[in-house]
Amino acid sequence: MQSWVDGHPAEALSIRDRGLAYGDGLFETIAVRGGRPPLLEYHLARLAEGCRRLAIPLDLPLMRTELLAFSAGLGEGVTKLMVTRGEGLRGYAPPPVALPRRILQGAPFPTYAQANAEQGVQLFPCTTRLAEQPLLAGLKHLNRLEQVIARAEWQGSEFAEGLMRDQAGRVIEGVFSNLFVVIDGVLVTADLSRCGVAGVMRAALLDVARAEGIKADVRDLPYDTFLAADEVFLCNSLFGIWPVRSVTGHHWSVGPLTRKLQAIARDLLDI
Amino acid sequence: MQSWVDGHPAEALSIRDRGLAYGDGLFETIAVRGGRPPLLEYHLARLAEGCRRLAIPLDLPLMRTELLAFSAGLGEGVTKLMVTRGEGLRGYAPPPVALPRRILQGAPFPTYAQANAEQGVQLFPCTTRLAEQPLLAGLKHLNRLEQVIARAEWQGSEFAEGLMRDQAGRVIEGVFSNLFVVIDGVLVTADLSRCGVAGVMRAALLDVARAEGIKADVRDLPYDTFLAADEVFLCNSLFGIWPVRSVTGHHWSVGPLTRKLQAIARDLLDI
Repeated sequence: MQSWVDGHPAEALSIRDRGLAYGDGLFETIAVRGGRPPLLEYHLARLAEGCRRLAIPLDLPLMRTELLAFSAGLGEGVTKLMVTRGEGLRGYAPPPVALPRRILQGAPFPTYAQANAEQGVQLFPCTTRLAEQPLLAGLKHLNRLEQVIARAEWQGSEFAEGLMRDQAGRVIEGVFSNLFVVIDGVLVTADLSRCGVAGVMRAALLDVARAEGIKADVRDLPYDTFLAADEVFLCNSLFGIWPVRSVTGHHWSVGPLTRKLQAIARDLLDI
Repeated sequence: MQSWVDGHPAEALSIRDRGLAYGDGLFETIAVRGGRPPLLEYHLARLAEGCRRLAIPLDLPLMRTELLAFSAGLGEGVTKLMVTRGEGLRGYAPPPVALPRRILQGAPFPTYAQANAEQGVQLFPCTTRLAEQPLLAGLKHLNRLEQVIARAEWQGSEFAEGLMRDQAGRVIEGVFSNLFVVIDGVLVTADLSRCGVAGVMRAALLDVARAEGIKADVRDLPYDTFLAADEVFLCNSLFGIWPVRSVTGHHWSVGPLTRKLQAIARDLLDI
């Protein structure tokens, strides 16, 4: 499928790009429906925040324009957007004047088992623990070896996602999704100030909760608290919401708040 | 200068390579003198260990052959070697059959101020702390955002290197070098089982110490212990050894063991 580099069709990138050398960049994985990216403002806001924190001087209006044009051409599928700091001198020091590179790749929309959304999923208990790095926490940056080794821990379709915890054992997220629990009617998701990726669907659901008068809280989530939760679900900007029905012998039923938010997520994503 | 991808002259790489997408790969920065890479066996051993731990099925004999041929063509300078897991399916899961990519880039040998080796260097005290991730610790992998943000903390030539500590405040390494101290005649370098890059010059110096009957120890290095050390020096496989003369108001003289090892490092690197 099509791909662009800096607004022009291209399939390759200089091997001197810092995105390759150091993972010095950011990405977004963006659903495209009818030529439009749902949750566009959330994606662009996270990208802007990542550029600010990594001091990558991206031309954000241009990035928006290119993303919209690319997605219009794609029609249906997924646009993967990557931004790197571009080429640099030898060594880690960022170049004094960086020329960030904008990369867009099209892909077909992934096919997920319908049962994931309907009956819920089993979580694989990953032994890979997330390292705590507040300076990078929350960002969707290109340093993703933790996710690669965590995702390599299981094969097959029995487990649709893996559970990731931090070094202290707190529950953080899925390998490619965020996690929410419902405790006494309160929607809770993990604090991502030490590790984790702050997903755009997570942000949208927190906004939805506020708008709907659902009490929501972002806080540390000890493993015991997670196991004792009334409802558990995963979310991301491609599949919306998947209820979680089990992890390592613990079981949950699909609860009413999960179903309510799932319907809202479907509307947000136009699926 | 010249670069090769998979043994052929090339300047670009597919934007679908996992090295770009996730930093899913490893690298080596290798001095080249008279067409030969000093410390060759150390570089290849670290690369092999990295491939083993990340389960990247690299053809190591082919990599060696290409590195030697490339370095012979380069003559004098630095060969940057990168290995990635190659292209993959969408998502973090490593492809069942990975086709790793071998990338070699030539660069001129960097010019360092002669005073660095002679009078020693001042260390910048980086506020960026290394995250603790035992599954990746020691590897020279392509996830290097911590080094990028640490190196961006200072500009100019007053500080030749930056000091990196872990989240608990222990001394680990420099941004692009390893660190040794001498305490009561014992050569000590930080344990890198939780974070840090296990440099090839560090490994070579530990072997040298054993061969020369110098007592050497790899252990945790609390900040106070570091400050109270008799000698402090940095090492890597390009510059050899730089004595450290100060960090944030603490000063050291260049000591006899530093000078002895510096001469040995020069011989190892042919500089």
